This record gives sequence, C-alpha cells and structure tokens, in this order.
Amino acid sequence: MNKLRTALIYTAMLAFSVGIFFLIQRYGRSLVASGPRTPFGTAATSGGDVLTHVLLALVVIIVAARALGAVFRWMNQPPVIGEMIAGILLGPSLLGRVAPGLSAHVFPSLVVPFLSVTSQVGVILFMFLVGLELDTGLLRQRTRAPVVISHASIIAPFLLGATLALWLYPSLSSQDVSFTQFALFIGVSMSVTAFPVLARILTDRGMQKSRIGTIALACAAVDDVTAWCLLAFVVSVARAQPERIFATLGLTAAFIIVIFVLVRPAALWLVHKQATNRLAAQSTFVIVCAALLLAALATERIGIHALFGAFLIGVVVPHDSSLAQDVRRKLEDAVVALLLPVFFVFTGLRTQIGLVHGSRNWLICALIIAVASLGKFGGSFVAARLTGLSWREAASVGILMNTRGLMELIVLNVGLDLGVLSPALFAMFVLMALVTTFATTPILQAVTRGRQPAP
Amino acid sequence: MNKLRTALIYTAMLAFSVGIFFLIQRYGRSLVASGPRTPFGTAATSGGDVLTHVLLALVVIIVAARALGAVFRWMNQPPVIGEMIAGILLGPSLLGRVAPGLSAHVFPSLVVPFLSVTSQVGVILFMFLVGLELDTGLLRQRTRAPVVISHASIIAPFLLGATLALWLYPSLSSQDVSFTQFALFIGVSMSVTAFPVLARILTDRGMQKSRIGTIALACAAVDDVTAWCLLAFVVSVARAQPERIFATLGLTAAFIIVIFVLVRPAALWLVHKQATNRLAAQSTFVIVCAALLLAALATERIGIHALFGAFLIGVVVPHDSSLAQDVRRKLEDAVVALLLPVFFVFTGLRTQIGLVHGSRNWLICALIIAVASLGKFGGSFVAARLTGLSWREAASVGILMNTRGLMELIVLNVGLDLGVLSPALFAMFVLMALVTTFATTPILQAVTRGRQPAP
Repeated sequence: MNKLRTALIYTAMLAFSVGIFFLIQRYGRSLVASGPRTPFGTAATSGGDVLTHVLLALVVIIVAARALGAVFRWMNQPPVIGEMIAGILLGPSLLGRVAPGLSAHVFPSLVVPFLSVTSQVGVILFMFLVGLELDTGLLRQRTRAPVVISHASIIAPFLLGATLALWLYPSLSSQDVSFTQFALFIGVSMSVTAFPVLARILTDRGMQKSRIGTIALACAAVDDVTAWCLLAFVVSVARAQPERIFATLGLTAAFIIVIFVLVRPAALWLVHKQATNRLAAQSTFVIVCAALLLAALATERIGIHALFGAFLIGVVVPHDSSLAQDVRRKLEDAVVALLLPVFFVFTGLRTQIGLVHGSRNWLICALIIAVASLGKFGGSFVAARLTGLSWREAASVGILMNTRGLMELIVLNVGLDLGVLSPALFAMFVLMALVTTFATTPILQAVTRGRQPAP
Repeated sequence: MNKLRTALIYTAMLAFSVGIFFLIQRYGRSLVASGPRTPFGTAATSGGDVLTHVLLALVVIIVAARALGAVFRWMNQPPVIGEMIAGILLGPSLLGRVAPGLSAHVFPSLVVPFLSVTSQVGVILFMFLVGLELDTGLLRQRTRAPVVISHASIIAPFLLGATLALWLYPSLSSQDVSFTQFALFIGVSMSVTAFPVLARILTDRGMQKSRIGTIALACAAVDDVTAWCLLAFVVSVARAQPERIFATLGLTAAFIIVIFVLVRPAALWLVHKQATNRLAAQSTFVIVCAALLLAALATERIGIHALFGAFLIGVVVPHDSSLAQDVRRKLEDAVVALLLPVFFVFTGLRTQIGLVHGSRNWLICALIIAVASLGKFGGSFVAARLTGLSWREAASVGILMNTRGLMELIVLNVGLDLGVLSPALFAMFVLMALVTTFATTPILQAVTRGRQPAP
C-alpha cells in the first residue's frame, strides 16, 4: 500500500465530504419543519440535571468517605468510623449548618430519593455479602459456648433497653407508636453487634486465629443471625396490624422453609455446576444476583425487611465455594467502597445532632451509651465467665461484642423509616453507635496489652 | 465445660428474660406518649414502596434480558440483540399493549426516574470499560488503512443520512430543531459501529486473529473514537446557544488537554503503584471510579455528554496493565449483566413501535435501514478495496462494520433526550439498529462460507 496514495485518498475524501455537507445544509436551511414547536424529549432538561446532581453527590460521597476512612485507619481505628463521621459531617449537623448553600447544591432534595434507593440497594447487597461470608460450619462446630455468650450479650442490653424505654416512652415517642413497639425497638437497637467491624478489628490486630478471636467471631456470627431474626420479628410487629402479625410470622416461616428446602439445594447444584466449569461465571453471577433481589423483594413484601432475604441467600451459598469467592470478588469492592458510603452519607443526612440539645437530652444520650455498653459488655462477660473463660478472656470478648458500626445504623434507619424512632432518638443512637465502635480498639488494647502480636 | 450446665444456664436465661420483658411491657402499656400523633418517618410509606418497585423492575429486567440473550446466543447471534428485543418487548410496544395492567405494575411511573439514572450510570461505566479495552497500540501500529476505511465508513453513511434528512426534516422534525442540528444527528445515527458487538461476533467465529478480523477490529476502534468525537461535537451544537458553541468547543479542547497532560501521567503512576503493590487494590479501584465519575460530570457540565469523560478516563489507563484488568474484573459483570439490561429496557420503554404505522412510515423506516447499510457497507468496501484488500476481504469488513448494537442505542437516546429525534424517528432508528445488527452474522456467514474455523 502506497503511503502517499492513502494520504491523498483520505484528504480528498475529507474535503469532498465537508463540501457535500455544506451543500446539503445550505439547501436544507430553507426547509420548514411541520412538527410541534415544543421539543419531543421530556427528559431534555430535567433528565440531564438529575444525572449531573447524582454524579456530583456520588463523587463527593465516595471521596469524603474514603478520605475520612483513611484518617481513621491511620489512627488504628476501623475505617468504618471515618465513613460514618463523613456522613454526619456532610449532613445537616455540619455542612448544612456551616454552608447551607453548598449543602443544597451538593445534596439538593431531588437527589435524595436516588441516594435513598442506592443506599438501600447497597445495604441489601452488603447483607448478602455478610451472609455469604458467614461460616455456617463455625456456628455448628462450637455451638454451645458462643450461643450462650451471644444470646446473653443480646438479652442483657435488650432488657436494659426495654427498661430504659419505660422512661423514654412518655417524653420521646409518638402517640402512634405503642409501648410494645417502642420497647422492642429500643431493645434491638441496644443489642446489635457489628460482625464485619469486629472481624476487621481482630484481623488488624492479628487476633483472628487466637482463642479469644475465634470465640468472639463465633459469638458475633450467632449474634448477627439472632439480631436479624429479632429485627425481622420486631419489624413485622411494628408494621403489621395486630391481626396481621400471625400472617406475617407464618409467611416468614414459609419463606425460611422455601429457602432451606428448595433454594439451598439449588445453590449447591449451582456451586457444583460452576466448579466443574459447566456454566459461564457471568451466568452464575446473574443467577445469584437475580435470586438475591427476588428474595429481598419477597421479604420486603412479607413485611419483614428486604435485608433479611438477601442475607439468607448469602447464607445458603457455601462460603468457601469458588462461586462464593467469584461473586464476592465481583461485588465486594463496588458495594463496600462505592455503595456503602452512600448509605453512611444518607444516614448522616438524616442525623440531626442539633436535636440533641439541653442537659436533659445529653443525659439521655449518655444513659443510652452507658446502658448499651453495660448490657453488651456485662451480658457477654458474665456468660463467658460462666462458660469457663478466664477473667481477661471474658473481658476481651465483652469489649469486642460492644462494637456496633454499620449494623447498628441499618437497624436505626429501619426504626426511623417505620416512625418508631423519633429524629432526636435516632441522632442519640447514632452517637451511641459511634462512641461504642470508637471505644472498642483503645479499651481492647488496654486489656490485652502485650498479649497480641504487633499490628 | 459441662453440657448440661450450659443448657441449664441457657434455658434459665431465656425464661428469665421473657418473664422480665412481659413485666416491663405490662407496666409500660399504661404509659402515654407526649409526641405528635403523626409518625416521624417521612419515608415510612413511600420509601418502602419505591424500593419494592425498583427491586421488582430490576429482577424482571435482569431475568428477561438474560433469557432472551441466551435464546439469541443459541441462534448463533450476539446476545445483545436478545437484550435489545427484551427491552422493546417489556415496553409499550408489546407488554404495554397486551397487558397494560401488568406493565403499569412492573414499571410504574415512579420507577422510571430510577431506571433512567441507573441506565445512564450503567452506560457511563460501560463506556469507561470500552475505553479501558481500547488498545491504543492497535490504533498506532496500523493507522493508515484502518483510519481510511473507518472514516470512509463514517463519511458515506453520514452524508447519505444528511441527504435523507432533506426529505425527513419537513415532515418528521420539531420546529424547534434547526435543519443543521437535525441533519448532523441523522448523520451520526447512521454512522455508528458497535465495537464490542463486532469484537464479540469475531470472537464467536474464531476470526479475531485473522487478517480480516484484525483490520475490522482496528477499523471499529477508530470508528468508536471518531464517532464519539463526532457525537460530542453534534451534542454541543444541538445543546448550546449559537454564541456558546465556541465556548463549548474551547472547554472540550481544554478538557482533553487536561486528560492527556495531567490525568494520563497520574494514571500511569497509579498503574505503577498498584503493580508494585504499594497501594491496596480497593483504594486504586475507588480512585479510578471517582476519577471516571468526575470526568463524566465535567463533560456533562461542559455540554458534551457524560459518556465522553468516562470513555477518556478508560482510554488513558493502559489496557493491559494489572490495574485495568483488576478494575475490569470488578466492574464488567455487574455493568454488562446487571446495569446494561436496565439501559436496554429503559430504551425499550421509550420505543413506541406503534408510532411506525402506515405505508409511508414503513417506507421511511426501510429507507433508513437501506441508507444506513448501504452507506456503511459501501463506504468501508470501497475504501478497503482502494487500500488494497481483496474483494472478499473488503466485503467482509464492510459487512462487519454495519453492526450497530448498543452504541447506536446510546446515540439515539441522546438524540431523544435532546429533543432532536421525534419518538417516531427514534423507533425507526431502533428498528434499524436491530436489523443491521441481526443481519451481520448470517450475511458474513454467506460471504466467508468455508473460510473460517468452526465457531
């Protein structure tokens, strides 16, 4: 092929075509269109605007969460605290107060529904991942001690929370919420442990293989399952008309049976298919995603929360199968680093720290933190001692179980959505989640000093 | 540890706590809350509903797209045709007509904004992946012949399209759209080639390493870059007030300079950092995602399309670096199998095949298909012959370049959003995209019969 000839052909072609287009345009300009004067596109103006705002909000959220997460990682704290704080700082508690104009520009009311749905989908996918990582073998091997410790660590704060509710209900609840709903919710909000944050703290400190580490992990896993069952129950009580509670509970039981009798064998079959390379990885991925969305939809319709279905689908996939590893690899970073920050910021946008003002409110807030910590630590410490752990081990387990993090925020958002928690109580419980999560690492360090490998 | 003792402790604990809770509840029931009667949660009713509908729509979309994609794969056709058809079938053209109630239940108007934003974000991420896979070396190595063939295959349908616009403008355009905008858009819509679909067809037929295959791939790659530049130009012309066109073009030039002078070295530095394990894979992933969203935001604000910025960020990351492979692994399946189907269905929801009725409209539709195919095939065939390919090779390249697929739909949606394409023209062009993509495989098979390895 001749270089010169190619260049000539090309130049001629370009010149010719530009000339032709101008001829066409010259003639066409005199034409008159008969169509309506209004443009056809409905999304012409609003569609682009929404996209711009959503993109802007996403960028700000992802960068802020990452930056504050890095700061807390550098402080030897779990980065999740930084992401939670980033959310609160971007909300009405700081940005909205200091720079209302900027806040309205970055998070105008028209992006809030998108952030809401994105954060909910993110949490659904995250709960699926939590279920996927749940080592059901861990639950079965060492059932007794962890179950006792874990359930003690749920019951103690739950009962203390319900008792506290006696004092909080008259002043801080809506008349539409019955005391039973209120007390159940306060109880659940007190008794959540964040399995992923706990696992992260143990890994950061090289303790995940130690005796305390494995016991704490098993306890937290039992805690997770129990807390989600409890939440599902509480939500069904809070949502349903009294006469519908039994229908909800019946449907929930039926759903769980379907999952374990029909979906679990299907999951095992799929795992086998993929392990023997008889199904493309992408197809498996789509099937798993469709199943988890469907399960989330089913539990949402039943009246317990969408999270519950996604979590169960994660549970029935064996956590060490190549399918689980493949799906986790494909979802984890996008969910943890892109979607969860949206959840934190969405939570932060709803957290009005300003509502906690005056000495009485701060006293309530301090009481909530004290009751939550005392119940969680006390319950697990006593149970751990009774089941044979040493003082130091029992104390470490108790401190670890007091980690709340993300899971607590999920429960609180459900409570706010249901109208059971008032915005002021919501803000107090968010502060409680922050303080208990933040306190875990330094206190653990003090108790186990010199007994664990360097981080 | 004594089994019996553990069991006893556990039972006592449970019984005790249930008793306590009933005591608390009994006392608490007599309390009266002082809060307002209305529940606090604003999202209590609408929030959950939106989530349910979004989940339902997502499940239906993902399953339908996958199922029809599998059918077309089984027919030796690229699955993307099946996904496009799934979108049309779920829209007003079939489901909305046959079962309007079901259609309104699955895709109520309140989920449409969410589908719109999700599909746009999906396409932005997809364009980033297309840019990421673009082998800039391929463009540089064999520049001349592919550039001539590719540009001929753009110019010929572009000019034919602009000529056709002379006939279409008086009857099918809004008065708000100038002839120049209209003609430019019809021209671009005619001249798009779908690089990913073409690559897929070649891979399916084992032709990607053959002489025709590499030439066609290089042509399609040049085509991609050229078509997106052209689209950016056309969008800026269509959107901007006449006096702002130069500002838009100036900002675009500045943006491209920033990308290649500042962002490209930063990308290379990041690639190096990651390859030497000095930065966690998740951090790199977040940085890349934040950069692509930021670039998308910038180009959207400039007035060319958000796609353009995301594509350029993909281009500046070396396509064979471990960073590119890692990011692709994490995004590809989620984008291709979960988000792009949303785009297809969103496009389908906007496609009203019913608007193409009467012999005149079908004649226009047939003309559009003929002009698009003739221009694309003719332009690339003649240029391929002139640059030295054999008859058969030139014909194969011409047939391959006529593949449109997803890229065409992106251009058409932009046209509809801008109000330049009427819904009727949009439907005709969607049909054109379907027909030309569908025709590629059988015609290619007829021309190259017995000359390529079995699929």
